[in-house]
Amino acid sequence: MVSLKEAIQAVAAFRSDWGIETIPLDQSLRRVLAEDIFADRDYPPFNRSAMDGYAIRWEDIITNRIVSFTIIGEIFAGDNKTFKLRSGEAVKIMTGAAVPDDANAVIKKEDAVQSGNVVSFTVEQCLPYQHIARKGGDVLKNGLSITKNRQINAGALSALASLGRSNIRVFRLPRVAILSTGNEITSVDVPITKHQIRDSNSFFIAGFLQHYSITPVIKKIIQDDVESLISNIEAVKDCDILILSGGVSAGDADFVPDALERCGVQALFHKVKIKPGKPIWFGHHTNGLTVFALPGNPFSVQVASNIFIEPYLRSCFHLPPVTPFRLPINVTRKKKVSIDEFFPAKYAHEGALEISPIVFNGSGDITAIVHSHGIVHHPSAANDLMQDDLVDFYPWEKFTDQ
Amino acid sequence: MVSLKEAIQAVAAFRSDWGIETIPLDQSLRRVLAEDIFADRDYPPFNRSAMDGYAIRWEDIITNRIVSFTIIGEIFAGDNKTFKLRSGEAVKIMTGAAVPDDANAVIKKEDAVQSGNVVSFTVEQCLPYQHIARKGGDVLKNGLSITKNRQINAGALSALASLGRSNIRVFRLPRVAILSTGNEITSVDVPITKHQIRDSNSFFIAGFLQHYSITPVIKKIIQDDVESLISNIEAVKDCDILILSGGVSAGDADFVPDALERCGVQALFHKVKIKPGKPIWFGHHTNGLTVFALPGNPFSVQVASNIFIEPYLRSCFHLPPVTPFRLPINVTRKKKVSIDEFFPAKYAHEGALEISPIVFNGSGDITAIVHSHGIVHHPSAANDLMQDDLVDFYPWEKFTDQ
Repeated sequence: MVSLKEAIQAVAAFRSDWGIETIPLDQSLRRVLAEDIFADRDYPPFNRSAMDGYAIRWEDIITNRIVSFTIIGEIFAGDNKTFKLRSGEAVKIMTGAAVPDDANAVIKKEDAVQSGNVVSFTVEQCLPYQHIARKGGDVLKNGLSITKNRQINAGALSALASLGRSNIRVFRLPRVAILSTGNEITSVDVPITKHQIRDSNSFFIAGFLQHYSITPVIKKIIQDDVESLISNIEAVKDCDILILSGGVSAGDADFVPDALERCGVQALFHKVKIKPGKPIWFGHHTNGLTVFALPGNPFSVQVASNIFIEPYLRSCFHLPPVTPFRLPINVTRKKKVSIDEFFPAKYAHEGALEISPIVFNGSGDITAIVHSHGIVHHPSAANDLMQDDLVDFYPWEKFTDQ
Repeated sequence: MVSLKEAIQAVAAFRSDWGIETIPLDQSLRRVLAEDIFADRDYPPFNRSAMDGYAIRWEDIITNRIVSFTIIGEIFAGDNKTFKLRSGEAVKIMTGAAVPDDANAVIKKEDAVQSGNVVSFTVEQCLPYQHIARKGGDVLKNGLSITKNRQINAGALSALASLGRSNIRVFRLPRVAILSTGNEITSVDVPITKHQIRDSNSFFIAGFLQHYSITPVIKKIIQDDVESLISNIEAVKDCDILILSGGVSAGDADFVPDALERCGVQALFHKVKIKPGKPIWFGHHTNGLTVFALPGNPFSVQVASNIFIEPYLRSCFHLPPVTPFRLPINVTRKKKVSIDEFFPAKYAHEGALEISPIVFNGSGDITAIVHSHGIVHHPSAANDLMQDDLVDFYPWEKFTDQ
C-alpha cells in the first residue's frame, strides 16, 4: 500500500519510449509535437497593410505637410510588385498586401478622398508604420515559434500551417489493450440476465484515450479465472499498455495480480491510499509492457484513469503534468475517510466560477459521471472542506497544453 | 452593421435541421444524443455486495446478538444462486455478487474470523444494508438516466454501455465546405514566394469542427475574383454549411459578399461591432445552405469560429449555449476600442484560478493562439478592466455539456 503521492510519482517516473514518427499535419490533431518548430521566414514575411487605403511616406504628412498625393499604382494582397515611392506619391493598397519599401504608413481609405489619380486625406495625424503589421513583428526567421512536447489543438494546426509544416514529428502512439475481467460481465450488444452487468469500463477507457488520439488495438471481456487471465494476458504482451478492470482486490475471486505476476509482469505497486480506486495495481514487463489493473466499479475506473493513467501517458509524451483548476467549492463537505478522496462535482456559475458536488452513490454509480464535470480532490491531510475553500478540480474534458 | 448580441441571436435563431440517425455506440464520441435514455432495469439490478465478506441478517447481530454463524455457501459476482438464509446463517460473498434475498447486511472479511464453515465477527456494530449497493439505488427501471441534447464524452459512453445502448440516436452531422479565398494564399505543401502566405484558416476550422466530430467534405483554396468565387460557391451549394475566409471587407478586392449574393445566398447580417472579426458576413440559401464568410486574418477566424459558428452549431444540435468561465483577470487592461472586443489570454494558477492576457500582436498574429488558452470578452459597455474584475473567458478547448 502506497500513498497517492508515491503512486503518482511512480507512474510518472516510469517513462516508456514509444519513439517518434513523421505524419501529415492534417492527421495530427491531439497528437504530441516531438520537435521544436522554428520560423522558416519572418512573420509577417513583409510589411503587411492592415487596412485598405494608401501607402505613403510618413514624413510627407508630418514634416512636409503634403495634402495631395499622386497615386502611382495599386497593390493587392498576393501581388509581387515593386514601387519606387517618392515624396508626394502614394500607392493604393489593399489589406494583406505588401507595403512598398519606401512607404512607412498607411492612411485608411475611410480617411481619404480620391479623385482620378490624386488622393487627399481628411486626417492630419499620422504615426510611423500606422496600419502596417511590420515584417518579423510576430516571429523572426529561425525564431522558436512552437515548442515541442505540446499537444496539437486546432490553434496549433493553424500556426503549423502558417509556418509551412505540412509534415511534423510527433510521438508515436502506444498500442493499448483493454481487458474487462469478471464472470458477471457481458457485452453491451447481447441479452443480459439479472445477475450480470454490462462492460462499460472499456467504453470509458477507449473514450478517455481519445483525448490523446489513442485507439485501443484490442478490447475484450474475459473470464475471471487464472488460466483465462494468463492466456489473455500472454496474447497481448506485445502491446505497450495493458489496462485491466476488475478482479484486482484481495478477494477469493481476485486473480488478476497473481495472473499478471505469473506472466512475468512485475508489480511496482498494489493498492493506493485513495478512495475510490484503492486496489489499483501497476506494473511492467521487461519486454516494455506497462500494466494498469484497475478495480471494476465504473467510477473507480474513471478516477483511476484520470489520476494514474493520465500522468503516465503525459510523462511518456513528455507533456507537463495536468494542472488542476483551483476553485472555490460552494458547500461544506464532511471528511469521510482518512485517506485521499476524490468525489464528482460540477461547475457552478453563480458570479465567479465555483465547484459544486453532485449527489453520488459510491463507486458503482453508473451515472455519476454524466452528471458531473470532473472530480475534486479531498486531501487526506485536510479536515472538512468548508464553503469557499479552494479545491483542486480535475475536469473530465481535457485541455491541450499551451 | 449589427451588435454582438444581435449577431449571436441571429446565428442561434437560425436552426438548421440535419436530421437524426442511429449509430453504434463505439462510434459516437463527441456526437450529440438525440434521444432521452431510460433505464432498461433497476441499477444496481440487484442488491450488490460492495465488499468481500459475509452476507447476514442484520437482526442477528443487533437484536439476537449472535456471535458465531454457520456458512451455508458462497457466492461470486455473476453467480445466479439462491439461498434460503435463516437466523444464525451467513453466506460468504464477493464484491459485486448479488446479496441473497434474506440478507440485509454484509460484514467485510477484515472484520471476520473464519474457521471451517463457521465465521465470527470482531465488530459489534452493524447498520442495516451496510456494504450493500441497493437494487435501484442509482437509477430505477424506466427512469430517465441520460437526457437528450448532450454531447457524448467518455463518461456518457460508459453510462450508455451500462444501460445496454449498443446503438443510439444522434443528430446527423452537417456537410461542411471550407473555402480559403485570396490571391496571396498558397497551400502548406508547396513552395512559397515572399508575397504569399499559407492557408492556415482551413486547418483551424477543420480542427475546431472536430470538437463536434465534424470532418469537412471539401477544403479548397480559391482565387479572389468574382467568377472564381461564384463557380466555387455553386460547386458546394449542396453542402449544409459553407465557411469562407478572406475577401469579406468592403475593399476593392473583397468580392465574397457580392459573389454570395449572386449565387442566391441571402445576407442575414454583414459586419458586427466587434474586434477582431468585424467584417463577418452571415447568410443562408433557400436550399438549406448556411454561409459564414469570415475575415482572412487567423486570429479573426479563431474568434469568429468560437463566437459565431459555435453558437450556430450548438443551436442546430439542440445543445445549450456555451457558458463562459467567469474568472478574475490578474492585471488591469485598458479599454482599446468602443466596440466589443476579444483578446487572447491564458490560465494563471497563483492560488485560485485566474486569467492572464498574453502578449498579442493583432489579428494577423499567427502564434497568439498557441500561447493562449482562450479568449476574454472585453464588453463594449465596460470601461478598463481592473485587476481582479471578473471576466467571461471562452477556452479554446471545449467541454461537453453535463
